[in-house]
Amino acid sequence: MSGTLYGVGLGPGDPELLTLKADRLIRGARVVAYPALVAGDSLARGIAAAAIPEDAREIRIEVPMTPARAPAQAAYDAAAAEIAAALAAGEDVVCLCEGDPFFYGSFMYLHARLADRFAVEVVPGVTSMTACAARAARPLVARNEMLTVIPGPLPEAALAEALRAADTAVIMKVGRHLAKIRRVLEAEGLAAQAVYLERATLPAERALPLAEAPDPAPYFSMVLVTKGADPWL
Amino acid sequence: MSGTLYGVGLGPGDPELLTLKADRLIRGARVVAYPALVAGDSLARGIAAAAIPEDAREIRIEVPMTPARAPAQAAYDAAAAEIAAALAAGEDVVCLCEGDPFFYGSFMYLHARLADRFAVEVVPGVTSMTACAARAARPLVARNEMLTVIPGPLPEAALAEALRAADTAVIMKVGRHLAKIRRVLEAEGLAAQAVYLERATLPAERALPLAEAPDPAPYFSMVLVTKGADPWL
Repeated sequence: MSGTLYGVGLGPGDPELLTLKADRLIRGARVVAYPALVAGDSLARGIAAAAIPEDAREIRIEVPMTPARAPAQAAYDAAAAEIAAALAAGEDVVCLCEGDPFFYGSFMYLHARLADRFAVEVVPGVTSMTACAARAARPLVARNEMLTVIPGPLPEAALAEALRAADTAVIMKVGRHLAKIRRVLEAEGLAAQAVYLERATLPAERALPLAEAPDPAPYFSMVLVTKGADPWL
Repeated sequence: MSGTLYGVGLGPGDPELLTLKADRLIRGARVVAYPALVAGDSLARGIAAAAIPEDAREIRIEVPMTPARAPAQAAYDAAAAEIAAALAAGEDVVCLCEGDPFFYGSFMYLHARLADRFAVEVVPGVTSMTACAARAARPLVARNEMLTVIPGPLPEAALAEALRAADTAVIMKVGRHLAKIRRVLEAEGLAAQAVYLERATLPAERALPLAEAPDPAPYFSMVLVTKGADPWL
């Protein structure tokens, strides 16, 4: 009997935003896997640290942050092979994932490599998107409003087109794209409705008007654009 | 000293998908408030039931599900007044909200009425959107893909336009709009990529191909449209 692969969402950063289910699965884990910077920290491990059993085996997935895809592919290939060996030996593996596993989550790369051969259960988590909205006191969408989630690395014209069509927009992965994003929001007349957040729900959290956002921004940063015309009932 | 109003996301339905923070706040609550059907059940109370202290005061907000807005407005006005009285008397109030409070959440109607006068803390929750993706084993978005969240009640032309522009689309609030949604997805050539889910993470959960979805669908139902062209690395 092969083991089960759990893809567990950890939420945006505050360890108290783990779900009860994530907490239970991590506390019972014999094998945990998580992404980490090469020779650096793992945000995922940091969020879950208090729940990881001392004697659990840890599979650390060092993902090179390079423009080329091949090094990251090789890292996930190697991790998938190590996880597959544990599953085939009958062990369950709990894979930690910041935010939600299927919403820009690192777990998707393992899911794509292992879901055809092993039992997989995905445990959803709180996304950084709604955590940022909560911390900024900015409701995202109500009633028949549309929400568009836009990756910041998109080209300027694609950003502008998506923002024009959106009721509420969430721009993810701001990082070194901040200047471009600010330029587009100003050109579209949306800068005043935009708020910038970084590291939401972590101790180093900051929420700033767009004009005061740092450039470049850290990787875990986001811009919320709420047109907010409707007083909601 | 006035009390604090907590808007607490409960997640999609499985009580184990409450966050540790939501669980802690509810277990410590002296006053809880939640929406309910008129003379009917409260899904929110049902999700949180095991955590609500027996001696907590409960403020039940009966929201009429009518096309006219005035009856629901009056219900939220009355609830806000009752909650304001408790807050002004120095009591904290924990308001229960299915899913996430700021993502089509009922808490927004109280936030709009009370946030200018009282301290409010919003606790984000797991959305039904990522819970559906997890249960359907359908990754939503990776890398530079855009996600569009579309309310099912929108007119046919607006649905079609939003679907055409989307990488991945999530259609919320399907209910009695199922036939229209199916018609648009078929016309756009997207029916084969669509999956229908109802009551995700609850015991009565069902996931079905779009062609087999019930018409009308229950209120808590969703259609995921994942174009899924990219194998993600």
